[in-house]
Amino acid sequence: MTVLEKVRQNIIPPEIKTIAQEERIALETLLDEIRHGRVAVPWNPRHTRLKPIGIGRRLRTKVNANIGTSPRACQIEDELKKLEICVRYGADTVMDLSTAGDLDKIRQMIIEHSPLPVGTVPIYQVMVEHPDPGEVRAHHILDTIRKHGEQGVDFITVHCGVTRDKIPLVKNRVGGVVSRGGSFMIKWMQQTGQENPLYEKYDELLDIAREYDMTLSLGDGLRPGAIADASDEAQLSELETIAELASLALNRGVQVMIEGPGHVPLHKIRENMEIQQKLCKGVPFYVLGPIVTDIAPGYDHITGAIGGALAAFYGAAFLCYVTPAEHLRLPTIEDVKEGIIAGRIAAHAADLALGKPGARDWDDEMSAYRYQLNWPKMISLAIDPEKAERYRKESHIQEDAPECSMCGEYCAVKISREVSELQK
Amino acid sequence: MTVLEKVRQNIIPPEIKTIAQEERIALETLLDEIRHGRVAVPWNPRHTRLKPIGIGRRLRTKVNANIGTSPRACQIEDELKKLEICVRYGADTVMDLSTAGDLDKIRQMIIEHSPLPVGTVPIYQVMVEHPDPGEVRAHHILDTIRKHGEQGVDFITVHCGVTRDKIPLVKNRVGGVVSRGGSFMIKWMQQTGQENPLYEKYDELLDIAREYDMTLSLGDGLRPGAIADASDEAQLSELETIAELASLALNRGVQVMIEGPGHVPLHKIRENMEIQQKLCKGVPFYVLGPIVTDIAPGYDHITGAIGGALAAFYGAAFLCYVTPAEHLRLPTIEDVKEGIIAGRIAAHAADLALGKPGARDWDDEMSAYRYQLNWPKMISLAIDPEKAERYRKESHIQEDAPECSMCGEYCAVKISREVSELQK
Repeated sequence: MTVLEKVRQNIIPPEIKTIAQEERIALETLLDEIRHGRVAVPWNPRHTRLKPIGIGRRLRTKVNANIGTSPRACQIEDELKKLEICVRYGADTVMDLSTAGDLDKIRQMIIEHSPLPVGTVPIYQVMVEHPDPGEVRAHHILDTIRKHGEQGVDFITVHCGVTRDKIPLVKNRVGGVVSRGGSFMIKWMQQTGQENPLYEKYDELLDIAREYDMTLSLGDGLRPGAIADASDEAQLSELETIAELASLALNRGVQVMIEGPGHVPLHKIRENMEIQQKLCKGVPFYVLGPIVTDIAPGYDHITGAIGGALAAFYGAAFLCYVTPAEHLRLPTIEDVKEGIIAGRIAAHAADLALGKPGARDWDDEMSAYRYQLNWPKMISLAIDPEKAERYRKESHIQEDAPECSMCGEYCAVKISREVSELQK
Repeated sequence: MTVLEKVRQNIIPPEIKTIAQEERIALETLLDEIRHGRVAVPWNPRHTRLKPIGIGRRLRTKVNANIGTSPRACQIEDELKKLEICVRYGADTVMDLSTAGDLDKIRQMIIEHSPLPVGTVPIYQVMVEHPDPGEVRAHHILDTIRKHGEQGVDFITVHCGVTRDKIPLVKNRVGGVVSRGGSFMIKWMQQTGQENPLYEKYDELLDIAREYDMTLSLGDGLRPGAIADASDEAQLSELETIAELASLALNRGVQVMIEGPGHVPLHKIRENMEIQQKLCKGVPFYVLGPIVTDIAPGYDHITGAIGGALAAFYGAAFLCYVTPAEHLRLPTIEDVKEGIIAGRIAAHAADLALGKPGARDWDDEMSAYRYQLNWPKMISLAIDPEKAERYRKESHIQEDAPECSMCGEYCAVKISREVSELQK
């Protein structure tokens, strides 16, 4: 039985109770959310080191970090270091998007070392193993997915919604197709003249997902890759197809998430979230950023944090990080760290604004220490204590100085604490 | 006559026409905005190197960068380097907040070298010259303001709204008073038992501002410094006072802006902007960030970019940058650069979403080059071409490679360009 089936039959694994406690939500509420597919718990039982988490609107917003090799940067040690950074800086899940080296081995190593749910995009392996898309048959794809399940992958991105009828909708785009899986499927469909096998054989896909209890992350192969293309017909038409497929998965006891854009200007984020929530009946929305402008390669962790905060505020449950390397190169270890922190800031900013349980406590505690000018506590509470400490140290301020080098003795907090009328 | 008076009498300096052209707005519209105080053009005629700009809702959102020495970091060369960075990376204005060294000389140097409007907070100089606030008399403050005017300062922050009746409203705050000028005024009022001289002698202040044509930036000395204190009575009550003072200034032919928070959670940004726009009848709102969470010292350029983007979308005209150094130290040259870029991203994201003239062209051009895989053009169009170029170089990709090291040969754009059905 899958976790979803267990919960529906009221068999409650202790891990689910732990999730309820950690999220400060009533167990009954959590179970109800899981039953209806509004919370996903990606949890392949073969991933033995996993500490399961829940992903959904009623829970803390989660952040995914993508790692993995590429043809131009392929060192397994680097990927394990990136995984370590993911755990250390608080990513909630990790996706192995490797496209070079011994893919099975890299994946195995990451699963073995990761306490976080691990996701993959199996079509990448198919793509690497078949340089000519025309040679790929449906069973190659399904067999690869099965292999990922056997290895213990917790969730997989599958581009089931990129169907033949949608190809013409992309033609007039400024940015074309920017999803690797999406572009591969389109090329395959063109070369073979056949329908997307992940759509055609969706039942078989569900069987495999059910067998290994992998959560499906229904990929948006047609997500816009330019502000000019945001919320276009291709995107929305794919979302409609995905929404139908999500229902089928839930009916079969398979957990599911919906992937979303991408590039979305500020004023379209709310409508994007609301359309998804409505069409997909609250199934968790997993968005990539979204980045709110195209002009800032090198700073897309920031454009993504702006969009991610708003997306999480209006409906997303799960943010895929964007690193400063986006649109420029495979992320380095440092890029991974910056992406995670920016993603977590976005997620927390939304959780705080939504009044999610416990979110504001962190801010209030920080502010109380700020008012006390208690530097060691401020630093230890910071989202990145090392950076906060380094910044203070580099300013050559005495370690026990009450203020910082911004204002020195003119510190407003220090002065306001001296005013007797304000004293607590 | 001040610029405002000239425009009201239909005497139009050529610089105003240039602003209209550069902002792609009809001259008549711009003049109307200036006449009603909805666009400010900080422009002290003694600042001979100035290239005037307009600040207002109908124009491109502007970004200010704070520079200046502090008791713990006082090198005039560093401040001139920071100014150079401000110009190079596209800050629209610069404020000299120096509190150490030869303040008059530093200010003079910055004004001489700056083509950007220069702002100051004259009370800082008063504070530095009078370690005991109780010794300060109203004429010290007014004389200092006059001196700044004589030197060519284009706009000054004056904390006129921090009046005695508001002190009790601060008492129960988590974060106290975080404005240096605000805390100094409160301490002064407590020590002397008198009302805020900038409020009491507001007419004299207006005379000086009018004489030198300095724009007043009515400072929010009681802005919240913690998420817990956002939109509290102290903040809103000060804003009401400031709104009245703004009308008086405009009636006297003195241009004016309104300063705003600070620390505001996502869900309170819209209401903050709308209250200000309504109370202050469209007078430009100049916000500090706002940062949307307290937990990220070291990354407040990101928390500030999230809040700044939303603030500019909902009503702010002018964003004061926040650097990664905020809450930790005086910004270094590198911090200044990061703060400017983050502020400009926020401003542009909002302008794009609001459909301000020309804003989206930049994104569309970038996206077109992305689709062409034209790396030199992508890099030269990036908000920070140096960083984009460095990122690509560090990835050891061949200079003329069509793709980047993220996907290598699996580049989605490359693949989608190969699909004949998608070809343009």
